[in-house]
Amino acid sequence: MRGTVLYAPGDVRFEERDDPKIIDATDAVIRTVATCVCGSDLWDYQGINLVEQPTPFGHEYVGIVEEVGDGVQNVRPGQFVIGSFFSSDNTCPHCKNGYQSNCLHREFVGAGGCQAEKIRVPLADGTLVATPVVPDEKYIPSLLACSDVMGTGWYAAVAAEVRPGDTIAVVGDGAVGLCAVIAAKELGASRIIAMSRHASRQKLAREFGATAVVAERGEDGVTRVKEMTGGIGADRVLECVGDERSMQQALRSTRPGGNVGFVGVPHDVTLDGTELFYSHVGLRGGPAPVRRFLPDLIDRVLSGRINPGKVFDLTLPLSEVAAGYSAMHEHRAIKTLLKP
Amino acid sequence: MRGTVLYAPGDVRFEERDDPKIIDATDAVIRTVATCVCGSDLWDYQGINLVEQPTPFGHEYVGIVEEVGDGVQNVRPGQFVIGSFFSSDNTCPHCKNGYQSNCLHREFVGAGGCQAEKIRVPLADGTLVATPVVPDEKYIPSLLACSDVMGTGWYAAVAAEVRPGDTIAVVGDGAVGLCAVIAAKELGASRIIAMSRHASRQKLAREFGATAVVAERGEDGVTRVKEMTGGIGADRVLECVGDERSMQQALRSTRPGGNVGFVGVPHDVTLDGTELFYSHVGLRGGPAPVRRFLPDLIDRVLSGRINPGKVFDLTLPLSEVAAGYSAMHEHRAIKTLLKP
Repeated sequence: MRGTVLYAPGDVRFEERDDPKIIDATDAVIRTVATCVCGSDLWDYQGINLVEQPTPFGHEYVGIVEEVGDGVQNVRPGQFVIGSFFSSDNTCPHCKNGYQSNCLHREFVGAGGCQAEKIRVPLADGTLVATPVVPDEKYIPSLLACSDVMGTGWYAAVAAEVRPGDTIAVVGDGAVGLCAVIAAKELGASRIIAMSRHASRQKLAREFGATAVVAERGEDGVTRVKEMTGGIGADRVLECVGDERSMQQALRSTRPGGNVGFVGVPHDVTLDGTELFYSHVGLRGGPAPVRRFLPDLIDRVLSGRINPGKVFDLTLPLSEVAAGYSAMHEHRAIKTLLKP
Repeated sequence: MRGTVLYAPGDVRFEERDDPKIIDATDAVIRTVATCVCGSDLWDYQGINLVEQPTPFGHEYVGIVEEVGDGVQNVRPGQFVIGSFFSSDNTCPHCKNGYQSNCLHREFVGAGGCQAEKIRVPLADGTLVATPVVPDEKYIPSLLACSDVMGTGWYAAVAAEVRPGDTIAVVGDGAVGLCAVIAAKELGASRIIAMSRHASRQKLAREFGATAVVAERGEDGVTRVKEMTGGIGADRVLECVGDERSMQQALRSTRPGGNVGFVGVPHDVTLDGTELFYSHVGLRGGPAPVRRFLPDLIDRVLSGRINPGKVFDLTLPLSEVAAGYSAMHEHRAIKTLLKP
């Protein structure tokens, strides 16, 4: 089969690789129906994360089960499935507490590279969720979004404890930030302020439920959010970037007693204990436990209630994956969907 | 009247000072019935916080209202009252959200020095809570505890979102940590692990509801808590110290998806964003909004349900306040109650 390998910053290749195989009895092998490029892939593509050797890439996927190990009971060949970037047994104490992305037996599914024609998924029973039937083509982008960005945006809202009537600010207008707007709306927020300075993303944010857009960043962004909330700050702020500036912006935009949910993978972020203390802001983050939300998110997609697949504004054949990376790197695309 | 003034590290004097007066129409002046020395006073007494000039000290008090300004409606002379260390109007948006210690009009009541015979309390209507009748002498220590340490311990538990059936660890065995044990028990925790290496505090922790005591600190303390929780960590951890080591101990003792409530005033604490991210731990701290909890805590005290006054293991005449500081500094007392 063929798959994507990152050789060095900017050097993405689509090449012949060994077919993935069942290694453990709890594995499944799936044939991808769609995969995509994640904003976090760009950290490596841009050389911010060090790539030390040719590395298979990608961690988002939907597909058809081809083969399962002897120990797999919940999914079977022929089913259309969606899974998270971390495998999870869904039975350990962390999974039972709803933190499947911290499963005691988790593996990073992306380690094998999901921007490929086939993928090995460990702990298939606990990781994969099958749709009732093989879904219509029109649902594929939104179901694919659930495997990471929609699940992550949803977790940002849940970690921030969004509740009906809240005023929300979303820091970050990438695919996760845009999906966080959807999540805030679905969870009943009354006002959703999207922080964005790109026209196409502002438009999509409004379409997803943002009631206002703020182009300012950093302290200027904080000032604007305060002005819009009677000097108080937003009830909950969803941080979807992952650098120190965005984290500070999120914390300082939140009212005392409010919450920040942070899902941008932190890069060189430190927090000052004294500032956090006097802010009275609650804080929770982490890699999203997507598996917790998948059944609900799939329902919302298949019922037409949410359409997070709109974050894909570029679709390419999987063989043109390199063009998908460069389009996102050059901000010509929000997110690239790849079709084998 | 006479009051306490800190001149320099270790130099506490009880001396003649001007009587406090009504300055604003919303003020009250109260005659103290009891006051006390706080663990946070020791930061200054020990020279860790810089004392630049002779400074009136103390911020915990119960007393009888002597005089009120023209704008005060809810309290009247002769009433026995309890208030927090921050004044609050109890009507601003932060107060309405339950964060009275972040009131838009707050003042630090301790600025005038509460280890004194009389105190000016700003925003009396929003700050003070009167008991139904002047309480019996036996309730005074516990009511005094509500003005800070019991309110702060309670907030640690509320900020950590303690719920029935939880396993809790409490880091810090000072008066606040011990009161946090009471709070965890009252909020329904099933297991309460008190981190303490002092026999008298261990004993009081057990009396307050601790089901286990761990003497180890730092990483050893984390290891013990993990061992006691099947390798998983406590559901909620209440941090009642305020240094970097105790904060790390709290965060690392908490299970993924659990919470840390931190109420120890931070001294040189920084948090690593990446560690916090991957921990999945929720975090909220701050100066306790004691006013939010006062009516409920007063009820619990007067009904005999809780007895946080036991944290006072030394009672002195107010004129011997210096001996009260040194006893706490030398760990001969957990907390000193002072009687004018």
